[in-house]
Amino acid sequence: MTTVGILGGGQLARMLALAGAPLGLRFKVMDTSAEACAGQFAPMVVGDYRDDAALAEFASSVDVATFDFENVPAESAQWLAERFPVFPSPRALAVAQDRLAEKTLFRELGIPVPDFAPIDTREDLDAALARVGVPCILKTRRLGYDGKGQFRIRSLADADAAWAALGEQAATVGLILEGFVAFDRELSVVAVRGRDGEFRTWPLTENWHVDGVLSASLAPAVADDVLTATAFDYARALAEALDYVGVFALELFCRDGELLANELAPRVHNSGHWSIEGSETSQFQNHLRAVLGLPLGDTRMVGHACMLNWIGAMPDAGPVLAEPGGHWHDYGKSPREGRKVGHATLRADGVADLGHALERVGRALGREAQVAPVIARLG
Amino acid sequence: MTTVGILGGGQLARMLALAGAPLGLRFKVMDTSAEACAGQFAPMVVGDYRDDAALAEFASSVDVATFDFENVPAESAQWLAERFPVFPSPRALAVAQDRLAEKTLFRELGIPVPDFAPIDTREDLDAALARVGVPCILKTRRLGYDGKGQFRIRSLADADAAWAALGEQAATVGLILEGFVAFDRELSVVAVRGRDGEFRTWPLTENWHVDGVLSASLAPAVADDVLTATAFDYARALAEALDYVGVFALELFCRDGELLANELAPRVHNSGHWSIEGSETSQFQNHLRAVLGLPLGDTRMVGHACMLNWIGAMPDAGPVLAEPGGHWHDYGKSPREGRKVGHATLRADGVADLGHALERVGRALGREAQVAPVIARLG
Ligand SMILES: Nc1ncnc2c1ncn2[C@@H]1O[C@H](COP(=O)(O)OP(=O)(O)OP(=O)(O)O)[C@@H](O)[C@H]1O
Ligand SMILES: Nc1ncnc2c1ncn2[C@@H]1O[C@H](COP(=O)(O)OP(=O)(O)OP(=O)(O)O)[C@@H](O)[C@H]1O
Repeated sequence: MTTVGILGGGQLARMLALAGAPLGLRFKVMDTSAEACAGQFAPMVVGDYRDDAALAEFASSVDVATFDFENVPAESAQWLAERFPVFPSPRALAVAQDRLAEKTLFRELGIPVPDFAPIDTREDLDAALARVGVPCILKTRRLGYDGKGQFRIRSLADADAAWAALGEQAATVGLILEGFVAFDRELSVVAVRGRDGEFRTWPLTENWHVDGVLSASLAPAVADDVLTATAFDYARALAEALDYVGVFALELFCRDGELLANELAPRVHNSGHWSIEGSETSQFQNHLRAVLGLPLGDTRMVGHACMLNWIGAMPDAGPVLAEPGGHWHDYGKSPREGRKVGHATLRADGVADLGHALERVGRALGREAQVAPVIARLG
Repeated sequence: MTTVGILGGGQLARMLALAGAPLGLRFKVMDTSAEACAGQFAPMVVGDYRDDAALAEFASSVDVATFDFENVPAESAQWLAERFPVFPSPRALAVAQDRLAEKTLFRELGIPVPDFAPIDTREDLDAALARVGVPCILKTRRLGYDGKGQFRIRSLADADAAWAALGEQAATVGLILEGFVAFDRELSVVAVRGRDGEFRTWPLTENWHVDGVLSASLAPAVADDVLTATAFDYARALAEALDYVGVFALELFCRDGELLANELAPRVHNSGHWSIEGSETSQFQNHLRAVLGLPLGDTRMVGHACMLNWIGAMPDAGPVLAEPGGHWHDYGKSPREGRKVGHATLRADGVADLGHALERVGRALGREAQVAPVIARLG
């Protein structure tokens, strides 16, 4: 009997546990909140990741550990890695936790990135603004998620406001200035690498964000073979450079047919949720297979899939459940503004059918705006 | 938040909970054993179904109840049904629990059955043997499963041995004598009926038993349209007669192109396990949708699937996980002779690919005999 420990007990941990049960695995989850939704389906230790006693309680009876949440303190991950295997490795995690280290690695590997500059002081910001130009975005280097810890600078006059908002964090989590990319669209590669180095990707996925939070994903993305191959090559290069084990997502901007890397998410990713019903093996099961050193499952997809995120509160399930390819995912969370509480996946054999399903669901739920860009892309 | 109570905490309850989590459901399971494997993923009440205190503890905080195990005492099901909805209804359950009531209903509905006769005394057995003829099978009317509580009578000389083995049970669970059907093959219809009467079937499935226990299932069965339509008509007639809500399986013998009903399993069924990966909506999720009055999901299947049961102990997972369409299901049980501990499903787009996958897996696991009849059927 193998027990997989998961740091973080949100929906990713929950879906990992549900996908791992058929492998005969047991799970143990650690989260700072007793309400964490993975706790509904797995035993949970509640405590701070920096609390030695809580960490030790989590570590007892765990055989291998992984993450639902990449912002676990590096020392905690390291402490665990001295006791049993931890995947992805604390080193890979450390790079992905830090936008500066991540972008520096991208550049070293020849993966194009937006202009960027580390910011330690108010003077650095001025100098970087002069070099990177406006518009641009000031971001925290660490601990950002769902667009949090970001300030958009539209003109030089915004510099003071940006510093007022985030300057204090220069000394704690660090800051980075990034050129704003007027992208045509956003894409992601969800990929998995095994302990033995085997590497597989799911089909390229297109993503739409609203207020910095993922709103919809379409797989496969409408993209030519060269673009797709380039994106996959970037993902593979990264995985190999980090000796990465498990699932990760590489988020990309696409501008005039050119790809620019945005970030590496060192975990199962929201843009891969469609794989639960849309591919032979979901990102959740393949992450566990990788972490355990089992053969990786087939990532090929069947038909076309669109994932719609539910933010804040769950809509009525009826219209999605009534669709032939409609699948519902309620994370069992209480509603809260801006919170990811669930998603739906619509699957269809052809793009026309998928478009019609999206139209029906969008109309029935009054979410025409959410489905509109996807429908437009499907043509 | 809706909590679904499940009576019985075996693999069926476990797979129901895993399939129901995405619907935002909570589960509560009741079983007589603290080791019941559904307890790994759902809170569990341990106790006898006839123990009022245990039943009351189970009933508290449950909104709707269903079964993993059809042999729950009728009074317990009735007690629960007075407190909240219970599906399938205690009445449907009572019929399906009793081979005599079941076969009587089949006959009333015009569904052909093997010859049968109720047996209360040793004299009844002689009279029934004279009428039904040999070979035949003496079975307990109630509480049989996986071929238990059965005695095969090959010649009249076996009558004493049969009575010695089962005669005592005539006064408790009752006995029935059934003509032995020299079937060409066994088929099952797995079907679901909603609270509103909507009825759907998964594709007809062919099943192979070894020592009375399911060994392999193939879906879709190789069968002509008339046979398939007849099987579906029988299932629908039964579901309507019982005002059935939820998933059930109708087990059929096929002899010279004619169908004879064997039994009705009033729950998700082993011969429908392939639906987890092989169809748009699994039997587990559709059972819950039916029980909750939600729209039923699409039961259409994608490609071809074969389920192999693992009895006694789990084999090495490697060969199945290495197959592109290989899916593993370890129920998290400790090994025990004759126990269903897990299954694998192999999925492929075409029958030739499925046959090759079965050959590889059969060889790698030394289970050539288990896969041979399926490969032979695939041609
Ligand atoms: N340099 C940029 N140029 C243009 N848009 C950007 C840029 N950086 C971020 N964005 C927009 O904001 C979204 C979220 O940004 P980013 O991925 O940095 O945030 P995050 O907090 O790490 O979110 P998550 O990890 O949930 O994706 C991006 O997907 C994109 O839509
Ligand atoms: N009358 C019969 N003629 C021929 N074979 C039979 C007959 N009854 C049972 N069998 C064989 O035994 C198997 C199990 O029988 P049955 O379905 O009655 O048992 P059970 O204990 O209710 O099992 P389960 O509910 O697990 O299917 C059948 O699938 C069939 O292979």
